[in-house]
Amino acid sequence: MLGIGDDCAVLSLPPGQETLVTTDFSIEGIHFRRDWQSPESIGHRCLARGLSDIAAMGGTPAAAFLSLALPARLSPAWPDRFLEGLLALARTHRVELAGGDTAESPGGVVADIIVVGRVRRGRALLRCGAKPRDLIYVTGDLGESAAVLHLLGSGRIKKRDVFSQPRVAVGEWLVRRGVGTSAIDISDGFSTDLSHLCEESGVGAAIESDKIPIHMEARKLSRNERGGEQASRLSLQLALHGGEDYELLFTASRSKHIPERIAGVKVTRVGEVLRERKMYLVQNGKCAILMPRGWEHFSAAKKSAH
Amino acid sequence: MLGIGDDCAVLSLPPGQETLVTTDFSIEGIHFRRDWQSPESIGHRCLARGLSDIAAMGGTPAAAFLSLALPARLSPAWPDRFLEGLLALARTHRVELAGGDTAESPGGVVADIIVVGRVRRGRALLRCGAKPRDLIYVTGDLGESAAVLHLLGSGRIKKRDVFSQPRVAVGEWLVRRGVGTSAIDISDGFSTDLSHLCEESGVGAAIESDKIPIHMEARKLSRNERGGEQASRLSLQLALHGGEDYELLFTASRSKHIPERIAGVKVTRVGEVLRERKMYLVQNGKCAILMPRGWEHFSAAKKSAH
Repeated sequence: MLGIGDDCAVLSLPPGQETLVTTDFSIEGIHFRRDWQSPESIGHRCLARGLSDIAAMGGTPAAAFLSLALPARLSPAWPDRFLEGLLALARTHRVELAGGDTAESPGGVVADIIVVGRVRRGRALLRCGAKPRDLIYVTGDLGESAAVLHLLGSGRIKKRDVFSQPRVAVGEWLVRRGVGTSAIDISDGFSTDLSHLCEESGVGAAIESDKIPIHMEARKLSRNERGGEQASRLSLQLALHGGEDYELLFTASRSKHIPERIAGVKVTRVGEVLRERKMYLVQNGKCAILMPRGWEHFSAAKKSAH
Repeated sequence: MLGIGDDCAVLSLPPGQETLVTTDFSIEGIHFRRDWQSPESIGHRCLARGLSDIAAMGGTPAAAFLSLALPARLSPAWPDRFLEGLLALARTHRVELAGGDTAESPGGVVADIIVVGRVRRGRALLRCGAKPRDLIYVTGDLGESAAVLHLLGSGRIKKRDVFSQPRVAVGEWLVRRGVGTSAIDISDGFSTDLSHLCEESGVGAAIESDKIPIHMEARKLSRNERGGEQASRLSLQLALHGGEDYELLFTASRSKHIPERIAGVKVTRVGEVLRERKMYLVQNGKCAILMPRGWEHFSAAKKSAH
């Protein structure tokens, strides 16, 4: 790769590949707060957002570009530590930081991450490929970010970092084996991202409530806040609607074997694709409508936190 | 092209090409002011910044991505008109707006434009290729943006739009004919961008003062402010050090014929490359050191304007 310090970066991608491009803002006061999270974790998440989008297409990240606007009065330690967090994750995924832009910000910190990746021609996992009777899978556990945000928002903890891991190797595995029919990453919340996938594919979904993999943080928070049945209801809400999990939600034909772990990451079958264009939650033998509440939940939590 | 509304955009670039990527911020209060410029001209310049970087590599733009953060209280007419200006320029250059991100901004408007382009493998015009005795050329006229900024900053005019034209067709012509040895676009100011090019190439330059193509706006401003010799000195300063001209500065071997117009754009030979790593301005038979004052000049103008 050429070009840092030139007018553009020059990337040489191998032949037979398509180019993937994604951009994601990380804005102080909207996506993070400097008093809640360490600069390293904010830098980590800034890049994780972009890598997770590449993972959701089954792609391999090639290069990242960072546009970073900083307030004039910010201590130089902050951007240094932000970059450390970002570059540590970049090294893990062998992604080069190949350029970007810097500017003064008259407001707070504004970062825009651009990740360029590649995928074999015609093999990208799209949101529109889910077919009725396909099975629905999710990686890892859900609800950690939402639980931590809840604790920060309520003032019960002052600072807490979450280092979500973008599931690049899982996406690559699905493309290599040719077994995924559609995929999306969980950034807005499971229910909302599932609704995007269903909409693009023109299908519906039935989700088995007791299959949803709930993160330990969400279980712990719920136990501390409520007792018995109420606790399990709260932890399920955090997992279903909490955002920023950066896990993968994907579908595969039921004729394909999906192992319990892919590239070391737990994979859970959580439901199946329906022809009827509605989302259901199946719980204790009852079937209720599953509403896409991810984004709204998150923005309500943010509002209560400000 | 696929993928608007998916996790990433998917681009299919023709084989034998390298991928170019550039990102540029346009931040309210830093790069523009809503009370000085129309939304259309701000949108135009936002994309022009990126296209100009592609032009400086001799590339062909393929797709643009816009990350746009808007204050909650902004009237919806502003982003609509901003996009109109941006999309009008995109259409002129047959560039698709293929994705991006949107967010709320707790401060002013923040836009980050990403342009992805392509160029034949190994043929990109770099900043590092200038050789001693090469001739130095510049497209169009210099100093318009600086003159207008000066008028706005002094309060003598309230509003004025500049629609700079990125010189994509000139860059493509240079690559197609294989005649350019190096290139850069003039965003920070002729003197500063020339110093970047000289530094990267390990060379110096002698610029002939009376060859510098001075924009009519800069001449007019100078005539109105000063008389006689002082006026011509001011207009030369605006052209040499004013930023945001988005013209191309390039070098070519003296054995190559460079026409007076390329793709309809005026091209002026302004000097030659020196082995000695210094920049000189040759004026009335005298030779003075040419300092890179572009960026500083611009930021001083901005400060006086706030």
